[in-house]
Amino acid sequence: MPVLSADVLSDFSNRLFLAGGLDPEAAAIVSTSLVEANLRGHDSHGVMRIPFYIGRVADGGLNPKSRLTVVKESASSIMADGGWGMGQVLTRDLMTRLIEKCKTSAVAFGTLIKSSHIGRLGEYAEMAADAGLASIMGANTHGAAQRVAPVGGKRPRLGTNPICMGMPGGKNGPFIFDIGTSATAEGKVRVKKIAGQTVPGGWLLDPDGRPTIDPNQLYGDPPGTTLPLGGDQAYKGFGLAFMVEMFSGAISGGQCAYPNPPPPMCPPPR
Amino acid sequence: MPVLSADVLSDFSNRLFLAGGLDPEAAAIVSTSLVEANLRGHDSHGVMRIPFYIGRVADGGLNPKSRLTVVKESASSIMADGGWGMGQVLTRDLMTRLIEKCKTSAVAFGTLIKSSHIGRLGEYAEMAADAGLASIMGANTHGAAQRVAPVGGKRPRLGTNPICMGMPGGKNGPFIFDIGTSATAEGKVRVKKIAGQTVPGGWLLDPDGRPTIDPNQLYGDPPGTTLPLGGDQAYKGFGLAFMVEMFSGAISGGQCAYPNPPPPMCPPPR
Repeated sequence: MPVLSADVLSDFSNRLFLAGGLDPEAAAIVSTSLVEANLRGHDSHGVMRIPFYIGRVADGGLNPKSRLTVVKESASSIMADGGWGMGQVLTRDLMTRLIEKCKTSAVAFGTLIKSSHIGRLGEYAEMAADAGLASIMGANTHGAAQRVAPVGGKRPRLGTNPICMGMPGGKNGPFIFDIGTSATAEGKVRVKKIAGQTVPGGWLLDPDGRPTIDPNQLYGDPPGTTLPLGGDQAYKGFGLAFMVEMFSGAISGGQCAYPNPPPPMCPPPR
Repeated sequence: MPVLSADVLSDFSNRLFLAGGLDPEAAAIVSTSLVEANLRGHDSHGVMRIPFYIGRVADGGLNPKSRLTVVKESASSIMADGGWGMGQVLTRDLMTRLIEKCKTSAVAFGTLIKSSHIGRLGEYAEMAADAGLASIMGANTHGAAQRVAPVGGKRPRLGTNPICMGMPGGKNGPFIFDIGTSATAEGKVRVKKIAGQTVPGGWLLDPDGRPTIDPNQLYGDPPGTTLPLGGDQAYKGFGLAFMVEMFSGAISGGQCAYPNPPPPMCPPPR
């Protein structure tokens, strides 16, 4: 396995994104975000995503020059539209604005629709913590990219809907809790698939609703599903995913899970 | 098993609380809250609690006449002190004030310290939903009443720290998600203990950290522990419990888990 320094990897990523149509500001933000995810040990949210991001720009699914538009705003809130720009660019902008609002409001709430993949949620919780703020965050998939079956079900109905909470810490840095509400994030299955490895039991069901350790099952037609977080208490995990779906998809004016969505945008790993 | 109508049970509860030293307003609020919990199927949070509540008043651990004191307030926030009053009285008051703030602020945040057991969190999420509001809530135990061991541990370090999210619904009522961040709520173990039944596997560990289905183990000396929510992903469940601990205990100016707390206030079931 080649070992690259973070600087070399960031620079390489940056040049790929510039060649792929991102402007210098966006390329730098996204490159830093992905390499930071690798450095934190979350390869599922790291440079592995570059081909997908650039592919989405190439096929017109993303507009890499788009920036945040504030649709509605108050002393304690922002409703924003990202115009299908780069998720990291948009979310960092939103968090910066929310931190600013917290200088005069005890609490602020923000929503963002029409954003591409926003990467590792913990990144934004760290921004808040650096500003001395606690934060709670969630994300859904605009109702598509369904991966997770309800308890007892065999068809996917929700995304892996992450939830993240952050709290300023002491000299050892902030407390960041950043999880998928599924037994595993999709990207972690992808990592196993690329490595030609099996996944742990308790992560996946095949399309007939039977447990499987074969990561390929998640990308079949029909696809398998990811189990909700929770093992014997997966009803709690699916409930959490369901609430994240509504907080993210409904309050924002975006979209919640709907019947027969297109297949998940993330292409099957090669 | 005797079957009582909700009205009869509420009236009986109310008279017990009046005899136990509560004023009529507090007795009515607490009685309604407990009976509603029974009606929702959560006997763990229902009238089973009456002897404990009244016992706490009798031993001076609670001041049933205490009401909410607002310590600090802004257009979007309330920090409150309950003076060890009745939890349901205090929390309904706080939620009423937060709902009022949401008439002029897009979002409001409130904290409450020095409150007794607040019952079923979903009750307050339902108040918010009735006012057309989404809500997120958590509670800790002022750092005591430790029941849950970290993953791989055998000593309790956190309470069962519930988290609750609510969202207004349509004609079928609101969406309410109200869970302990442990594999089970303490009260549900107590229900099994009282009934002389075993608990399902995956709920409890004995004091040596071994799985057990004996509810008595939770009330031994040394006590057993409740597993965190999550089965194979219990690290996610304990992380969630940990963040609820900090959001509830730290932001409020209350207290987070501390070493060698007194035994949980809930007495072992008879």
